Amino acid sequence: MPKIFNLNEIKEALQEVDVAAAIEAGFVAYSRGDVVVPPVGELVFEDPPGDVHIKYGYIKRDEYFVIKVASGFYNNLALGLPQADGLMLVFSQKTAQLECILLDECHLTNVRTAAAGAVTARFLAPSTVTRIGVFGAGVQGRMQVEALLPITDCRNVIVWGTGEEELEAYREAMAPHDLTIETTRTSDEIAATCNLIVTATPSRTPLLRSGQIRPGTHITAMGSDTREKNELDPAILGKADIVVADSIEQCLVRGEIFHALSAGVLAEENIRELGQVITDPKLGRLSDSQITIADLTGVAVQDIQISKAVVEVLTSV
Amino acid sequence: MPKIFNLNEIKEALQEVDVAAAIEAGFVAYSRGDVVVPPVGELVFEDPPGDVHIKYGYIKRDEYFVIKVASGFYNNLALGLPQADGLMLVFSQKTAQLECILLDECHLTNVRTAAAGAVTARFLAPSTVTRIGVFGAGVQGRMQVEALLPITDCRNVIVWGTGEEELEAYREAMAPHDLTIETTRTSDEIAATCNLIVTATPSRTPLLRSGQIRPGTHITAMGSDTREKNELDPAILGKADIVVADSIEQCLVRGEIFHALSAGVLAEENIRELGQVITDPKLGRLSDSQITIADLTGVAVQDIQISKAVVEVLTSV
Repeated sequence: MPKIFNLNEIKEALQEVDVAAAIEAGFVAYSRGDVVVPPVGELVFEDPPGDVHIKYGYIKRDEYFVIKVASGFYNNLALGLPQADGLMLVFSQKTAQLECILLDECHLTNVRTAAAGAVTARFLAPSTVTRIGVFGAGVQGRMQVEALLPITDCRNVIVWGTGEEELEAYREAMAPHDLTIETTRTSDEIAATCNLIVTATPSRTPLLRSGQIRPGTHITAMGSDTREKNELDPAILGKADIVVADSIEQCLVRGEIFHALSAGVLAEENIRELGQVITDPKLGRLSDSQITIADLTGVAVQDIQISKAVVEVLTSV
Repeated sequence: MPKIFNLNEIKEALQEVDVAAAIEAGFVAYSRGDVVVPPVGELVFEDPPGDVHIKYGYIKRDEYFVIKVASGFYNNLALGLPQADGLMLVFSQKTAQLECILLDECHLTNVRTAAAGAVTARFLAPSTVTRIGVFGAGVQGRMQVEALLPITDCRNVIVWGTGEEELEAYREAMAPHDLTIETTRTSDEIAATCNLIVTATPSRTPLLRSGQIRPGTHITAMGSDTREKNELDPAILGKADIVVADSIEQCLVRGEIFHALSAGVLAEENIRELGQVITDPKLGRLSDSQITIADLTGVAVQDIQISKAVVEVLTSV
């Protein structure tokens, strides 16, 4: 019988986990070829609209393998239910016995996604961040900023949203942090004043144009994780000095890099992988005038690493 | 919070389910194009050796979608653990909320697999079954025969196994049924005396040669569900009058049909799908002299159908 843990127990365990360190080590193992990650499993629904991703895999010679399910059902809010849901299944790699069910309701996915943004910024953001610009006032729009706080002194944030209501909710949710928060409904001020930009929307049309991007800007694009979603004008990736994928294999078929490759403005051999940059920081930003782009589509190794870390805390009692 | 059911509860609920009817309806829906079934997710392990299959999907406009995990770890027996394990996750198709976790330990996979064998035999076996031949003395070797009992009067069984110990265990396990059971360690007597043969092994080399197969024989090959596994000499499929796949799409890349296509002895256009045969029995066996082969690789719609049926019983209390 597997051990089953609910969201509250998982949140408590997370307080004892160094998530960024676990995620960083995961990307390094991934780029070294030590992680088995089959293609993402995907279910798409039309009525009501939604999608479900199954990400799974294992680090060779490790204790566990992990299967993660995360869903986004966009009409759920109207029903009073969360848009995102999910769980993680942690199995023994020795026997395939199901050891733990983490009923995380997508929280671990959110946390590991935000942590990847922070790891990315540590290696690619300019040395002095003048202002943080965020597209998307949802859960990731908040959590990406929270994950950045330990790695930058910048406390000046501007967030783009589609309506005043969600922007007001964003300001309220972020009030506990000591931040200066402006809000906007256009991209111009973000592009003109921010040198660390995070895109965290499900947009299918670009939010930023190539002409807007100034030298010295880093963009972490983490909203687009399917073939359809697209947050950046592909020309931005063509113009960038450095383009980094969390997983080159995944980014060939989904996310911003997929769109830039399709548009013919980016060549596959010019893409670097996040784990390579972490291992050899000379592959990351070398000057404050470079334009750097990271495309994060979410890799199963993040799910493996965060669930392993949480399970270690939960089962060590 | 999802409802969680263990194996005993699931077994009790199964007593109220007409599994064969549910599986038959599932194959019909599948072949009609009403079921969304992405490619099987697969994890392969080397040390210790094992594999994990993730099968998932949904029937359009249905209440649920289902994600099934089933594993086979071959060294587990030496550790006193079952070789096969797994669980089924049942989600609402309206909201993606996880409704039920069925901790079935692979039992539902075993039951739905055996039921597919029975459905297949109903449409493809000769009108009078003289003797049932079974390759494999494991769980499916038993359950396939048990599932056949309601659809044939034949009570004469011969089973092939790799050792006397497992054959003795087979005889003991089947003692409650009123059957005449012989055992063998070669294929000759099975091929010469049986006109309904089931192969249920993880063999990677053919167990039956083409020259052994007599007119009027039906073979359900259900052991090979990967590219590597192969129970039948591909020439048998070339020689057969009718070749049926549970899923043509899946059989193009795994199972006996994959091997026969690779060997060039079978053409894709000569493969029929089980759901088509059920809908139009004229596509099934038309005379007692035909040779018919069914290749069952296991389709997610079986998991969807059996888990739905069990959940209906379990949640109707």
